[in-house]
Amino acid sequence: MKNIVLVRHGESQWNKENRFTGWTNVDLSEKGLQEALDAGKALKEAGFKFDIAYTSYLKRAVKTLNNVLDAMDLDWIPVEKTWRLNEKHYGMLQGLNKAETAAKYGDEQVLIWRRSYDVEPLPLPETDPNSATQDPRYAAVPDQYVPRTEALKQCIERVMPFWECEIFPKLKTVDNIIVVAHGNSLRGVVKHLKGISDADIVKLNIPTATPYVFEFDDDLNLVRDYYLADPEELAAKQAAVANQGKAK
Amino acid sequence: MKNIVLVRHGESQWNKENRFTGWTNVDLSEKGLQEALDAGKALKEAGFKFDIAYTSYLKRAVKTLNNVLDAMDLDWIPVEKTWRLNEKHYGMLQGLNKAETAAKYGDEQVLIWRRSYDVEPLPLPETDPNSATQDPRYAAVPDQYVPRTEALKQCIERVMPFWECEIFPKLKTVDNIIVVAHGNSLRGVVKHLKGISDADIVKLNIPTATPYVFEFDDDLNLVRDYYLADPEELAAKQAAVANQGKAK
Repeated sequence: MKNIVLVRHGESQWNKENRFTGWTNVDLSEKGLQEALDAGKALKEAGFKFDIAYTSYLKRAVKTLNNVLDAMDLDWIPVEKTWRLNEKHYGMLQGLNKAETAAKYGDEQVLIWRRSYDVEPLPLPETDPNSATQDPRYAAVPDQYVPRTEALKQCIERVMPFWECEIFPKLKTVDNIIVVAHGNSLRGVVKHLKGISDADIVKLNIPTATPYVFEFDDDLNLVRDYYLADPEELAAKQAAVANQGKAK
Repeated sequence: MKNIVLVRHGESQWNKENRFTGWTNVDLSEKGLQEALDAGKALKEAGFKFDIAYTSYLKRAVKTLNNVLDAMDLDWIPVEKTWRLNEKHYGMLQGLNKAETAAKYGDEQVLIWRRSYDVEPLPLPETDPNSATQDPRYAAVPDQYVPRTEALKQCIERVMPFWECEIFPKLKTVDNIIVVAHGNSLRGVVKHLKGISDADIVKLNIPTATPYVFEFDDDLNLVRDYYLADPEELAAKQAAVANQGKAK
């Protein structure tokens, strides 16, 4: 049996403040750091070990991974970081409070921007100081690959080449992989693994720092998937994510 | 101008308790974690950026690196981990208190074990549960390469192939490298870079979490080296390391 465990980063400062984050390099909150350590402890207690880890370029994912591995005494395993696992780019919405945006544009428009398959927010101007094209992190990435806004569709289109060519084939040589990334980049992976439709993917809410285990047989067919979590806690966490975009 | 910055890990639990650590996977102390963050802040304020980082398999080094990079907002850069940068293996001394060992065997014998070039402590039996040959971290390393004890000479002999074939040639393609490792593995690197004799290397004390900068010209000749630290603090830290092996 082989495993890929997906983990969304722990609560970030902006999750807490209910702001659109996207590619903004926001830190974990204290709670998010503790969530990461708790996820690591739960994985260790359940007997998981990993051969290799993947994460994004964003601090909240890298630090979640570092703390998961530390809690598992797996600090030493190889970690590969890639911009392709970054969160969906939220364009002009980055930095805005979700509830304020919902009050202004309506719950429905915000839900579309957050969760629809192919409607992207207005793009961040290329000359904006917060544009990723101005960021040394992405200097090695050709400009046409660096997004200024993304719908989930576009986010998935840049996650998938890395998933299909790097992460998934790695299961041929190792048995256990952990991927720590973001709500939308992981939503893309789950859509692909479970064959979820464009319409249904909007309803899928991935809770923070909760290990989502995908088991494969030796031919790399998906056998089962489950969250490593207490069912009640899991339901509460999923509801919290779903409610973030509503006006309060 | 190109830079390689060497950093010894921050204070560990066993540095604090004055015990021989070697390959034992001891965590950082609270102070050590803060030292790592301070080193990162100092590097950031001095304008350093890094293209790639190297560290050992040991938690105290990996966590020092993670915190240095976090303080510099460089969480995203590639990190390569290798057992070849591990601390000198202290054989049967691992876990013993340095002052107690000194009281039993004398300051001079302890200084020889800690600092001599070619006298190794008694080896850890292969069947010892603490033997690295029993540790899944080193399962991929052929048994004859996994030490059960090391003199500085042997530690250097396993560091150097990685230094000369991986880290140093990397300067041909990038300008700034950080290496976070251990007192003795870094002593080997410094001996090599500065042409220090076998006799003099015993006197070289590398303080914890203090960036040691090596500048190279475009032909990779060493131009100068210096600690990024306040001279008084540096002297105090170096004296503290030198005095660790004395009976109290």
